[in-house]
Amino acid sequence: MLIVGEKINATIGKVKEIIEARDADGLCALAREQADAGADFIDVNVGTGSGSQADEIAAITWAVTTLQAAVQNPLCIDSADEAVLEAGLQSMDSRQRILNSTKAEEKALVTIVPLAVRYEATLVALPMDEQGIPPTVSDRLRVCETIARACREHGLPLSRVLFDPLVLPVSADPSQGRITLDTVAAIKGAFPDAGTIMGLSNVSYGLPRRTLLNAGFLQMAVYAGLDAIIANPHNVDIRQAVLVSEALLGKDRRFRRYSRAYRG
Amino acid sequence: MLIVGEKINATIGKVKEIIEARDADGLCALAREQADAGADFIDVNVGTGSGSQADEIAAITWAVTTLQAAVQNPLCIDSADEAVLEAGLQSMDSRQRILNSTKAEEKALVTIVPLAVRYEATLVALPMDEQGIPPTVSDRLRVCETIARACREHGLPLSRVLFDPLVLPVSADPSQGRITLDTVAAIKGAFPDAGTIMGLSNVSYGLPRRTLLNAGFLQMAVYAGLDAIIANPHNVDIRQAVLVSEALLGKDRRFRRYSRAYRG
Repeated sequence: MLIVGEKINATIGKVKEIIEARDADGLCALAREQADAGADFIDVNVGTGSGSQADEIAAITWAVTTLQAAVQNPLCIDSADEAVLEAGLQSMDSRQRILNSTKAEEKALVTIVPLAVRYEATLVALPMDEQGIPPTVSDRLRVCETIARACREHGLPLSRVLFDPLVLPVSADPSQGRITLDTVAAIKGAFPDAGTIMGLSNVSYGLPRRTLLNAGFLQMAVYAGLDAIIANPHNVDIRQAVLVSEALLGKDRRFRRYSRAYRG
Repeated sequence: MLIVGEKINATIGKVKEIIEARDADGLCALAREQADAGADFIDVNVGTGSGSQADEIAAITWAVTTLQAAVQNPLCIDSADEAVLEAGLQSMDSRQRILNSTKAEEKALVTIVPLAVRYEATLVALPMDEQGIPPTVSDRLRVCETIARACREHGLPLSRVLFDPLVLPVSADPSQGRITLDTVAAIKGAFPDAGTIMGLSNVSYGLPRRTLLNAGFLQMAVYAGLDAIIANPHNVDIRQAVLVSEALLGKDRRFRRYSRAYRG
């Protein structure tokens, strides 16, 4: 399981302050503690929702440069704006990188897919288009096919694509849990070279003891074919769900990680 | 999720003593505490491994009569011996009943399937035959088809069959977790009228923190199509896994059970 640490996100008030103040120590602490907790990639989202594009470009350039000097982990540049994505990529050294994300809208595909090609990035792809989030598994798969076609046209191999099945709250529509899981399985069936990624926390919105639901959903999703999560790596329930699901599904060689965590 | 409480099993030393001593209070306490913890059916296995067939017939007759006078729950008669199964059935009042279990061996099918028909019982069916437990999903499904054919011949509707996919320890063979889960899904695909049931605890044999693995496996299995478990209903991890998986998969109307357990 690839874990992308989600905590550097400027929609969180404390993180917004760190970015606006160019507080390098505060930013690097957020990265280091996620790395120590087991994050593989560190997500970097500097979109405060209130700044200009120029502000965000300056902020992502500062954040990427600062983080690369402080941690070994590769970064995941997180923005809906292709100019911010490109500024982040231009600031990066030679380590691996993830671009988060493109939708299936024509405008996004013709700009962001080529960015992933040019900068040799792995691309997170959301199966939503001008009509929004498709309600059924087959509709979401059809939108994934639109994305896959654009990737083929631009020369991005599907092994560098992470499809996100899109997670909606079950509290609003109880059928959404199964739709998301079946979408993961359908994507793995249709695009065996591609990976899958999910942000977990939406599923439990509006219900109590949310991390219980997030962790249970993660275990089901690993069985369905999930390869990566965008999550808080400090969460004990999430870490436990990763260890348990990998042990049960033959993805933890000789049960080393599970045994190290729980033996004794 | 149908929960069959597993604790009245004479292979457990304390339970063997209760049965041999005809300790009605001790037996009924085991049933009541499982009923209070949420068990739907109470499994009754009086096979000590050392007594004669006549001993077991006397024991199951006593146990069924004693339990029916003490609890409202229906019972699940658990034996590999059709004479013991029939003695249990003959002692029963009009409530629902489960027979646990038949294998796919010819000798079992021609005696136990007709018992389920005659006594209007639901039948647990194990896809293993004279050659043992089939190693692959398709082989297990083929053995389920042998059982389904016998049910059709004898007039037992598949809606009264609970197929057990058979759970083997992942510690001995890490591929067994996925094989069991895929067998559940394959059975639901091939026999949509039939149910599925699983004893959870085998999966974690030989590994630490076994109930973490059992609970994680249960959540995956519910997504795969599991309808019933044979388990200890007191176990907090198992109860939590049932609540979480049903909430996530639209099986908990208005999230009533989940919210009752965790709100506040």
